[in-house]
Amino acid sequence: MSLLLRALRGDDTPRAPIWIMRQAGRHLPEYRALKQKYDFWTLARTPELTAEVTLQPVRRYGLDAAILFSDIMTPLPAMGLELEFRPGPVLERPVRSPTDVDRLRVPDRDEVAPFVADAIGLLRASLGEVPLIGFAGAPLTLAAYAVQGGGSKEFERFRAFVRQEPQATEALLDALAETTVRYLRSQIDAGVQAVQLFDSWAGILDVPTYRRFGLRYAARVLDALADAGVPRIYIAVAATHLAEAIAELPLEAVSVDWRLPLSRWRALLPGRALQGNLDPAALLGPWTSLETEATRVLREGLGGAHVFNLGHGIFRDTEPDQVARLVELVQGFDRVRASEATSEHPAAGAAG
Amino acid sequence: MSLLLRALRGDDTPRAPIWIMRQAGRHLPEYRALKQKYDFWTLARTPELTAEVTLQPVRRYGLDAAILFSDIMTPLPAMGLELEFRPGPVLERPVRSPTDVDRLRVPDRDEVAPFVADAIGLLRASLGEVPLIGFAGAPLTLAAYAVQGGGSKEFERFRAFVRQEPQATEALLDALAETTVRYLRSQIDAGVQAVQLFDSWAGILDVPTYRRFGLRYAARVLDALADAGVPRIYIAVAATHLAEAIAELPLEAVSVDWRLPLSRWRALLPGRALQGNLDPAALLGPWTSLETEATRVLREGLGGAHVFNLGHGIFRDTEPDQVARLVELVQGFDRVRASEATSEHPAAGAAG
Repeated sequence: MSLLLRALRGDDTPRAPIWIMRQAGRHLPEYRALKQKYDFWTLARTPELTAEVTLQPVRRYGLDAAILFSDIMTPLPAMGLELEFRPGPVLERPVRSPTDVDRLRVPDRDEVAPFVADAIGLLRASLGEVPLIGFAGAPLTLAAYAVQGGGSKEFERFRAFVRQEPQATEALLDALAETTVRYLRSQIDAGVQAVQLFDSWAGILDVPTYRRFGLRYAARVLDALADAGVPRIYIAVAATHLAEAIAELPLEAVSVDWRLPLSRWRALLPGRALQGNLDPAALLGPWTSLETEATRVLREGLGGAHVFNLGHGIFRDTEPDQVARLVELVQGFDRVRASEATSEHPAAGAAG
Repeated sequence: MSLLLRALRGDDTPRAPIWIMRQAGRHLPEYRALKQKYDFWTLARTPELTAEVTLQPVRRYGLDAAILFSDIMTPLPAMGLELEFRPGPVLERPVRSPTDVDRLRVPDRDEVAPFVADAIGLLRASLGEVPLIGFAGAPLTLAAYAVQGGGSKEFERFRAFVRQEPQATEALLDALAETTVRYLRSQIDAGVQAVQLFDSWAGILDVPTYRRFGLRYAARVLDALADAGVPRIYIAVAATHLAEAIAELPLEAVSVDWRLPLSRWRALLPGRALQGNLDPAALLGPWTSLETEATRVLREGLGGAHVFNLGHGIFRDTEPDQVARLVELVQGFDRVRASEATSEHPAAGAAG
C-alpha cells in the first residue's frame, strides 16, 4: 500500500507523505502555459487536459500523491446552476429564494461531471504507484457560493439567507449533499483512492449554526461513503472553534490550517490522521525560514499519522524551487529517528 | 459612573450596556446623506462633521456609548504613508523594504491626527452622560495594511514580508506602536473615556508568529496606557486559536466575534469584561431569529461583566428598525432576574 494510504489509515509511517494543496497550481509555469491556451472550463472538462494538468506537479516534484485537477464548483452546472470563472466562480443566477431551490436538479451519478471519470481513468493509467485523490466541496461551502453568487470575504448574503429561509437552506443542502455523494461515488468508481471534502467556509459560522447547516450535511456525505473503501479527508479553514464538532465526523483524516500546531490538533482529534499544516506564506519566505517552519510542522506531527501538506492553497507567486526543496526536506525527514530523539531528549524535542 | 464604564471595569451590571460596532455605519440613511456630500477624509478630518456622524447612531438608537467616527488608518499619513479610500484604504506607496521602514516618521502626540482631538472636544460637550470610546488599529493590523497596500483576503504580501524581513517588520511595528500610543494618549487627553484597540487581522497568524509580531506590540501599546485611567478593550476576529495569548494582554475587556459563545470566552479569559458577540448577520434575518440569537448572547454573557455588541462591523444592508428593536431588547433584559432564573433552573438556563 502507498505511503499516503497507509498514513490516511492511521499508520505512524516512517516518513510523512507529501502533496501540495492544490497541486495543479497557478504557480507552475507549465500550468500557466496551458492556461494561456485554454480557459478553466476547457481544462476541467477535457479529460486529456485535466490529466496533464493533474500530472504536472507530480512529475516536477515527485510528490507522494496526485489530486485531481478541478474546482469545487464543478458539479453545480449539472444541478442547474450555471457559472463562469472570471477567474473566481460567478453564478449566472444565484439561489435567492425557496423557488430557486425547488428548481434545482439532483443529477444521476454519471451525469454530475462525466468528464471527471474519464480523466480519472487516464490518470490511473499514467500514475502507476502514485495514488490519486478525488475531491468535492462540502454542502455548506457550495451553498455559501450558490447563495452569495461567487466568492466573498463575508458571505453575508448566505448568512442572511440561512436566517431568512432556514427550510429552503436545508433543502438546498439536501440537494447539494445528495449530488456530492453521487459525484464522489462516480470518482471512486472511476478509480480515486482517497477523497477530500473541502468545507473552506465553515469557519465563518458559530458552533450551533455550523452544527445545523454544516456538520450535519458533511457527515451525511462522509457517512454515505463509509463502505466505499477509500479514506475520507475533511478540511475546514480558520475553524479551530469547530474542532470539537469536526471530531464527530465519520472520517479517517482531518486537514488543518496553520493556526494551531499539529500537537494541539492531535489532542483535539484523537485517533485521526492529520494532514497539514504549513502556512502557505512560508513558501514565500527565504529557505532558512521555510526550513525552520517546515521542520517545526514535521516535529509537531510526530506521535501519530501525518500527511504533510500546506494549511491552505499555494500562493500564485510561489517559486517552484522552494517547493522542490520543501519536498526534499519532508521526504528526507526520518520520523522514526526524530521520535526517538524526542523521547530521549523531550526538552530538545519540545524546543524544536 | 456610566453603565459602560462600570461593565468595562468588571462590574456584573444589572443590564448590559450596548453599542454597535462601528456605529457611524454605512447602514444609516442620515450617514449616507452626508457621505454623498463629503468623502471619507473630509468627514474624518472636519471636527464638526466627525462629531455629527459620531452622534447620529447615539441619537437614533439611544445607545449606551458613542465611538469616535474615524478609521484605523487615520494615523498613517502623519507617519509618511499617504492613502486614499476607494472606498477601502489604498496606500500610495506600500512598505516593501527596510528602506521604506527607515523613511517612516513617528509623529508627536499632537501631530498624529489633531482634528481627532478637536472632534472629541465637541463630542464631549454634546454627549452629556454618554461615554465616548476612542480607538486605534493595533500595530500588527496596521502593518498588514501598510505592507499589503490595502485590504486583502489573505494579506500574503505581509505574511511574506514577515519572513523575508523580520527585523524590518519589527522596526515597522516599533514605529506603529509608538505612534499608536501617542495617538491614543491624544484621544485620552482630549476626553475619551475608554479605548479599543482593533487587531482585525491577528487571526490570520499562527500562535508563535502572533506572539512575536502581534501580541508583543499590542501589549506594548496597552501597557503604555496603564496609568491613563481609562479601560482598555482589545478586539481580534476569527482568532479563537489566540485566546490563551490574548489572555496575557494588559487590558480590562476583550471584544469577541460570534464564533464561540460568551460562556466559553468567560472560561478562556477569566476576570476580564467581555464585549460582543452577536453575529452581524443576525441583523439581516427576521426579528424572531434575531431575538433568539440576541437572547442567547445575553444569557451566555451572564455570570460576569458583559458589554453587548456585534462580533464585528455592522453590514451595510442592515435595516435601522432591526437595530432599534435589538437595542430595546438588550436594554430591557434584566440580568439580575435572568441570573436568578438560571441558578434556580440551571437546565432551563442552559437550554436558553
